[in-house]
Parts: sequence; structure tokens; C-alpha cells
Amino acid sequence: MPCRDKNYSESHVAAGFVATFGETLSMLRKLFQTSDPSSQPFVLSGSGTLSWDLVAANLIEPGEDVLVLGTGYFSDGFADCLRVYGTTVTELKAPVGTKPQLPEIEKALSEKRYKAITVTHVDTSTGVLSELQQLSALVRRVSPDTLIIVDGVCSVACEEIDFDAWGLDGVVTASQKAIGCPAGLSISMFSGRAMKAAQNRKTPPASYFASMKNWTPIMQNYEAKKPSYFATPSPQLIHALHTALSQILAKPVSERFAAHRAASDRIKKAIAGLGLKQVAANPDEQAHGMTAIYLPDGVKGADLLPILAKKGIVFAGGIHKEIVSKYIRFGHMGVSVLDPKRNDVDHATKSLGEASAECGYKKA
Amino acid sequence: MPCRDKNYSESHVAAGFVATFGETLSMLRKLFQTSDPSSQPFVLSGSGTLSWDLVAANLIEPGEDVLVLGTGYFSDGFADCLRVYGTTVTELKAPVGTKPQLPEIEKALSEKRYKAITVTHVDTSTGVLSELQQLSALVRRVSPDTLIIVDGVCSVACEEIDFDAWGLDGVVTASQKAIGCPAGLSISMFSGRAMKAAQNRKTPPASYFASMKNWTPIMQNYEAKKPSYFATPSPQLIHALHTALSQILAKPVSERFAAHRAASDRIKKAIAGLGLKQVAANPDEQAHGMTAIYLPDGVKGADLLPILAKKGIVFAGGIHKEIVSKYIRFGHMGVSVLDPKRNDVDHATKSLGEASAECGYKKA
Repeated sequence: MPCRDKNYSESHVAAGFVATFGETLSMLRKLFQTSDPSSQPFVLSGSGTLSWDLVAANLIEPGEDVLVLGTGYFSDGFADCLRVYGTTVTELKAPVGTKPQLPEIEKALSEKRYKAITVTHVDTSTGVLSELQQLSALVRRVSPDTLIIVDGVCSVACEEIDFDAWGLDGVVTASQKAIGCPAGLSISMFSGRAMKAAQNRKTPPASYFASMKNWTPIMQNYEAKKPSYFATPSPQLIHALHTALSQILAKPVSERFAAHRAASDRIKKAIAGLGLKQVAANPDEQAHGMTAIYLPDGVKGADLLPILAKKGIVFAGGIHKEIVSKYIRFGHMGVSVLDPKRNDVDHATKSLGEASAECGYKKA
Repeated sequence: MPCRDKNYSESHVAAGFVATFGETLSMLRKLFQTSDPSSQPFVLSGSGTLSWDLVAANLIEPGEDVLVLGTGYFSDGFADCLRVYGTTVTELKAPVGTKPQLPEIEKALSEKRYKAITVTHVDTSTGVLSELQQLSALVRRVSPDTLIIVDGVCSVACEEIDFDAWGLDGVVTASQKAIGCPAGLSISMFSGRAMKAAQNRKTPPASYFASMKNWTPIMQNYEAKKPSYFATPSPQLIHALHTALSQILAKPVSERFAAHRAASDRIKKAIAGLGLKQVAANPDEQAHGMTAIYLPDGVKGADLLPILAKKGIVFAGGIHKEIVSKYIRFGHMGVSVLDPKRNDVDHATKSLGEASAECGYKKA
């Protein structure tokens, strides 16, 4: 369109947007805690799910083996995505509410040469938190060439992730969770090792839109403040991401993670106080940005959720197929936890107690 | 997040958003002029480029033949995308600024059985407009089973598209051009015939995020006002699309197309008046939402574009590799054409004349 004024969308090659996108990519390095120049951020129009395609279509070649640590609905989804691109997937599935343990992972890694291992940092279907630092150390010791890929959709910006120090090869996420930007962006960071795996593959990338080969020069150009085109980015969403990252990085990220842990501790205590049980039973394996809670005895989600909604509280229903109707999910991340003027967390836990009582629940 | 207030993003499964998304999908049927209930709209987070993957990974199986009508940069891109998914592509390339003609298309269709033919309705690299109605009649006569797929990124909502009447099988586009919504959405419409081709393929879809199999039930559920989940949609962008479509459909779409033709005629006349030439030389093959203009003799784009920018006019540089430094591109679609209170078009053509003169150009 010919004219540039505030009613128009900014051109994706205009100098102002190029600077914004470039700064956004550089800020992602800080959020992921990587200063290794060979690390490569990507921001694509899409969702967290598209980030799985980015991994599957670029880092893994057809017929190669990947070990998927099975924690629930979202690790199953990652496995499905990998299979679409011809990956031979081995799923190491843990019982609902738990995660695969290091000894069994070590055993699996010893039995076969895996191109990559994937771990869902927080499986949003169960609220199970996977530990990354010891896992990474184990992989490096037992199977040093295996790429360590983290699904961080429900963890980036609320759980600690130290990309370089922990030796991660890929962390993929989305804009709309703890980063606090509107939905519509796939966000990821890959190590130099992962980038080399993509570059050195014998077969061409198995996707066009999700091709790292197509996008890498674009991301590098924008970060160098040069306009570049493969497919049209979303100036509005990338501006929003720039704002969200500027807010996040205004304080040390360690403070942000600590605030999420503190709020989560308070929530978990309140839930226990109501006599309710978490899906993630082990305190060491509980996410800090969400909690999956078994419904009170005799209470149905279809009855409880509308009462909560009337109190201004949106909880999500279950999504893990083995327990889908038996639990609800409570998200507590970003502004609702970090803004001291809000009392969202306490209002939500109090409302959960009241709504449960209205459904006839009495603590045993 | 627990609380619902105006500072939060709407949940993608909240009743309000489900209604908005459902209405958006139904409105797309009106924009594309299809009342056949077997037609299926898709709205995905992504860009117009992702729509190519949607076609290539779902409608075409590896080894199948597709005839690509070559009009420039964007038809080349569609061909590249198809090849990534194993399609055998035949490109019928026309010289720069023209399009393949019906007799040569008929000849090509007679020589081989093509699963699909793709046509870039407006190739943004040249401003060449392809005619669809006679093309479709030709395909139906010569090769009735061939799917007719239209890249409508630069045409939907500014050029007439009569999906049912013209017997089209797919029109793919993006949010940010003549629809006038922010960038970040892939938007497409497929016929019942195309949907059957996707359903009946012998091999599984070749993409996970761009899988029609994964998305079809989601789109159908939302249009039936039922929440559904495969990957998180963007409530903000879909709300914006709802607003844009409501504005478009407030008047008959025929009036919208006529307004674009009238503005385009005025622009083309002004350009000829300046002694400048269009890349699309044939008046029957000129787009109505943009114009590609050869630079005035002796004038460089690198000199002209910054002068235009100072006058508040953003024109784009060239993108077609054969003539990249020799021309500029002028977009004239949506609000800049339709809002009678704006004088964007006249300001832009006047500025083009002034800027050319400032660069030393004198009409011969």
C-alpha cells in the first residue's frame, strides 16, 4: 500500500521493523541464556506445533532413530510429528503423572544410536516437569552425539533454561504462554551442533515453510538489521514479542523463575489444603507455571468449570486421554504471577475451594 | 491463566472466540463465493507460503505430476515447494511480464496426466494477472480430473474470484494483502473434489503442522461453534480477520472488485502519462491491486525509493530475478483504494512523477 501512517501495517522490509525483528532475535538469546554465537534463534508465523515440524523436517533424516521421553499428550504429539517425517521413534513412556527416570533413559540410550532425544520440559497435559541438567549430562556421557531437543512450550520464560550451560541443542516454544505475547508465533533456539546437523543432512529438508535452509539466512539477515524475504513475517506479532521480551529482560531472568516457583509453591499448598491431589504426584516433578489437579471426589469438570467461569476464573479441562474427565488444569504464569497488584493466584485458589463446595465437595 | 479480563488474551476454546472463529470461516465462504457445502475453508497461523505446503503435502502424492503456470517469482516458489514434497513439476514458463497462453496450456495438458495445475492469479513479482474462468473451462474440457489450484495471495479480496461458478478446486491466500488483516494467517478454500483427493491419498500427509487430516475436523468443529484443538490458533489475528471480513462483506463483493479496477485504471493511466512502462505489458494481463513499473530511464531504484519514502510513499523494489534492479512495485489495494476520504492513490502517482523528476528523469 502506498502510504505509511499509523493506520497501516508496517512493511516487513521497512527499516523500523527490520530493527525490531533484529532486536527480538537478539533478546531471545538472552531469554534462553545462550551467548554462543553459533546458536541460532528462529521466529516463524505458526504455533508451538510448527516448531516440532522444524525439528522433524530439518534435524532428523528419514529412518533415523529418535528417543521420545513420554510424559503425556504433548510428548505423544511430538512423536506423531516425527513419524510423519519418517523418523523411527522409540517412546519411553512413563505412567500418567510421572516422567521416565534417568536409569531407564541410560539403558535406552545404550541400546541404540539415537540421532536425538526429545523431552517435553513441562507436559501441559499432566503438569509434569522434566529435569534438564542431569538429563543432558547423562546424554553427553552415554551418547555424546545425540541431539538434546526440549519442547519448552509450557516452560520457556517460567522455568529455568540455561541453554549453553546445560548443553542443549534445541528448545522450541510458542509466543502465547509464559512469554506473554499473543498466539501465532513459533519460537525456537538451536545450537551450532543442531544447525550443523541440518546443514549436513544427506536429504533435502522435508518441509518448505518449515525449512531451516530457507529461514536461516532470513533470521541472520534480520538480526544483522538487513531486510530479507522468504515468507512474510507478522510485524504486529513480532512487535508484541519485542515488547514482551523487553519487559521480561528488564529484570534478571533468575528473579522471574524464582517468582514462578514461589507462586507455584503457594498454589500447591492451597490445593493440598483443599484436600485435592495433583496429577504430578512427585514434588520434584511439578511444573511451576501450571498445575494439573484431580477433580474433587464426586465432582464433574462439566459442573465445576462453569462455576469457576462465573467467578471470572478460566481453568482448562483435561486433555490426557487416560484421565481426560478426571482432572482440570490451572495455568499460573506471566503477568498473573508477576504483577504484585494482581491477586489472580489467590482469587483462583479461593474460587476453586468455593466452587468445589458448591458442587457438594467436602474435604475428607 | 486464571482470570478473564480485557488485559488477557482470549482462550482459544472460550465460547466467545469459538463463535468468532466459526463466523470467520463462514464469512470466507462468502468472500470466495462458494455455497457448496463440500467446500472447506482453512485458517492457520502462518503465511501465504504455508498455504503452498498445504497443497503440496496433502493434495499431491510423491511422484505425481503438477503443471505450474510460470509467471514469475511466486510461481517459481510454488514449484519449489511442490518439489520439496516429491512432486514432479512441469513449469510452463512465460517471458517476463506475460503469462502462459491457453493454446500452449492445452498442449501441455494433452501430453501428460496432471494431478493438478497451479496458477498464480496475480504474480506479485510482475503484476501479471492470470485469467481463471477460461483457464478452468479449458482444464475441465481437456483434463477433467486435474485439480485447479489458484495462488490468490495478491488477488483474494481485490480481484474477482467466483469459486463455485468457475469450478476451482483450491484458492490459497494470506491475511495481509487485500483482505486488510495483519500478517500471520494462511487462508485457503478447497473444493469437495480437492478434499476427497486429500482423504483418498495412498500415502499419509507429508506434513504434520500443514496436515489437512489434522486440521479438517478442527475447522469443521469451530464452524459448528464447537471448541476443538490440534494446535493453538491466534485469537488476536482471527478477531482481526473477523473484523476485516465483516467490513468487506458489508457491501457486495462485486462493488469491491469494481472499485479496485477503477483505481487501477486511474493508476495505469497516470503511469502512462509519466511516460513509464508496466512490466505487465498486455492490458488484459494487468493486476488491479498492484502495478509493477519499469524505472524511468537512467533512474536507479536505490535513488528513487528513498525520495518516495520521504514523501510518505512506500513502494517495493523488484523481486523477479531477471529484471530485479530495473523496476519497482506499487501496491494499491484495500483501504487505500476503498476509503473515499483518503487520497493515497493520487498522492502516490503524483509523488512518483515528482520523485522521478528529482532523479533527473524527463519524459521523452
